[in-house]
Amino acid sequence: MNRPNLFESIPDVMEGEVFEPLIQTSHLKLERIISRGHATPPGEWYDEEMEEWVILLKGSAGLLFEGETEMRVLRPGDDLHIPSHQRHRVEWTDSVEETIWLALHYRSKDNKDESGL
Amino acid sequence: MNRPNLFESIPDVMEGEVFEPLIQTSHLKLERIISRGHATPPGEWYDEEMEEWVILLKGSAGLLFEGETEMRVLRPGDDLHIPSHQRHRVEWTDSVEETIWLALHYRSKDNKDESGL
Repeated sequence: MNRPNLFESIPDVMEGEVFEPLIQTSHLKLERIISRGHATPPGEWYDEEMEEWVILLKGSAGLLFEGETEMRVLRPGDDLHIPSHQRHRVEWTDSVEETIWLALHYRSKDNKDESGL
Repeated sequence: MNRPNLFESIPDVMEGEVFEPLIQTSHLKLERIISRGHATPPGEWYDEEMEEWVILLKGSAGLLFEGETEMRVLRPGDDLHIPSHQRHRVEWTDSVEETIWLALHYRSKDNKDESGL
């Protein structure tokens, strides 16, 4: 086992959040994300074409879905499905330790737009 | 957040390994697996059509790939890609605590066999 451990291998220097692809095919992308107190800039939203599933492995985070008033707080082991085009923001991530996520982006069904991939 | 936490929610009674689907589409299946000292029966091998990626979240396990003499020992945070049709066995899982895995089964490319799915 020479692969770096996904809970423990953290870059010493991070200029921003780290997005590390683990698997990529025409239908899915699995990535590890490392945040250090990062949040989505004020007024900005993620709006993604693909479905997304996330699990928080370490640290903590608060996510907000557009149209909701209550944040979804994630602790290690919590997972969340973010439907395609559900606008959302990361309001905060842990200020003390790194937050490590796995994010799986995937197509829920065959999509005629994918022919070029 | 009413979803059960994936690190903590463990059934009290398990008759065998627990395979809990989290996402299923025509191209991928993500599942949580809970093992309690389970192993693949002697002489048996897994041989799967789809690619597989696993991460061990809790506990520990030893996997053997056919044709190799050395087991791959997984600790929390270790991940492993198991190529399509790579025969493999779970030689052992932790005898003291539950072993929790995430397993992602996926197609690496468009496959003419999938039309019926």
